[in-house]
Formats: sequence, structure tokens, C-alpha cells
Amino acid sequence: MNFTVTPVAHVRSGRHDAVDDFWGGTECRIELTPEYDAESLSGLRDFSHLEIVYLFDRVDPASVETTARHPRNRSDWPLVGIFGQRGRRRPNRLGVSRCGLVGVEGRVLVVEGLDAVEGTPVLDIKPWMAEFGPRGEVRQPAWAGELMTNYYLPESER
Amino acid sequence: MNFTVTPVAHVRSGRHDAVDDFWGGTECRIELTPEYDAESLSGLRDFSHLEIVYLFDRVDPASVETTARHPRNRSDWPLVGIFGQRGRRRPNRLGVSRCGLVGVEGRVLVVEGLDAVEGTPVLDIKPWMAEFGPRGEVRQPAWAGELMTNYYLPESER
Repeated sequence: MNFTVTPVAHVRSGRHDAVDDFWGGTECRIELTPEYDAESLSGLRDFSHLEIVYLFDRVDPASVETTARHPRNRSDWPLVGIFGQRGRRRPNRLGVSRCGLVGVEGRVLVVEGLDAVEGTPVLDIKPWMAEFGPRGEVRQPAWAGELMTNYYLPESER
Repeated sequence: MNFTVTPVAHVRSGRHDAVDDFWGGTECRIELTPEYDAESLSGLRDFSHLEIVYLFDRVDPASVETTARHPRNRSDWPLVGIFGQRGRRRPNRLGVSRCGLVGVEGRVLVVEGLDAVEGTPVLDIKPWMAEFGPRGEVRQPAWAGELMTNYYLPESER
């Protein structure tokens, strides 16, 4: 059984290329679609961070990986199942990430460090609550830390 | 423009009621649909936590809130926009949460503390990487902390 999802907003960003790194310090706008008014965002400014669910709409569905691949095609990193990594060529093409909330301007959110390019369809906007983070100690393989080294580094520190 | 999403897995849980609290310590299984084989999960066991995107399929689309409501209908908490809270009667009915990975058994994941009931369609499975958490200090309103008090408390500590 399939489900239909409809964008609730779009990302307005100066960034047009889906680059891998240097998302730190980037600011962009999330503009609600006409179906939603400012009331749907009320109370959001009391949170410092948001969790955004979006769709990698520039990924060709035909290029989606369903088995395993080397993250970023780096053969020095292990062959990992598509559900064991966060690459964007994934089933349903969903992205989830945390960003800082800079401000709310009517039907527009100004956010910092959202890893999404111009025009990206946003499927959900949720406030980040500390209690919703992972409970207990987090463990991850070495390749994941290596991959993330420059991800949220500001472009100016390249 | 709409998008179609297709479940990649389903939650198999003893829990049939969409209760608000006491998800701590609950164990359930996430079973891949026939389209995906065990290879799609390879490498996942190196992570302690997962991020699961799922669909609140028991929520009647006609009951979805598009403006503002009191979280859990608690009038002592503020009236908050649907994107300023995490209530499940929300546009696109998407849920995102973190759970502990207990084990990988072929095409099945055994997880701990996933806040989803029996049969829930899973749209994505991602490994949790520490670097993908919120950067900087987290701030949230008092009502959010109150709402979360018992959310991940084990049933035994009710």
C-alpha cells in the first residue's frame, strides 16, 4: 500500500548544488505552501532547533540504491546497506535533519545549517525536543565519523 | 506536486494502542517488505541507535490539524501551531524517532523504545550519527519538557 505526501513548504536557499559538505553557517528560508498560514508555526520560536523532513527531489528514482554501496563511493570505506547509511539515493528519497531556528517571519522560517538545496520540498516541520534524542550512549563505526568531519563545518573553514 | 511513498518495512509489536507515554524498554521488530533483502541492512549493527521515519496510518486524514491546537488537548498548555509540536494528527502524518538497535536478524531489526504500534508502515531506516544531532545548546519551552516526562519511562515505572 502506497501513501501520497504533499509538500507543506519549500526551501529557499542560495545553494543550488547538492554538495556533500560545508553546511555549517548556511542560512536559508523555509516558506510554507499557500495551504498553511502563520498560525501553524505559532509557538515554534520557543525552540532553538527544528527537525525537518524533506524529499531529495533531484535524485532520479531510477538511481535509488536498494541493496548496498560504498558511502560516497569511497572504496576505502566498507560496503554498507542503504539502510546502514544516510546517502540520498535511498528508497522514498527522504531526508531528515536538524537545523537551528534563527527566526519566524509570518509564514517563513529562517534557519541555519539545513542541508537542503533550493526548491527542496519539505514534508514536515517538527520542533526538536531534547528528550526525543537517542537515549543512552551512542556508538557508531569509524567511517561515519570520518564522513561527517566536514559536513557541518562552515564554508569559511574549508 | 505530490509524491508517492511506499513502506520499506512494518513494525511488529505487541502494542496495539497508540498510547501517549511509557515507550521506554518496549522491544519490537521492524520487518522489511519483500522488495528488500538482508544486504540493505548490512553494516547497521555497528550503530547503537537508529532514526526511523514512519507513517501514522491509524490517524484519519480528516482529523489532521492544519492550524493550532493545545498539545494533548491540555488547555493548561499553550495553543501551539501544528508545526510547533509533535502531535500525530499532523500534515502528511509523518513520525520520526530514535530507537536503540538491539540486533539484526536477517531481514528483521530488533529495536528498543520505538514509539510505534503494530503494523505501522516504516518509510525509512537511517543510522543515527552523533554529528547529525542538533549543533549548539538546545532550548525548548516548559510545556515540552512536561509533556515528555513519562514518554520514554518504562511501563514498570508508571
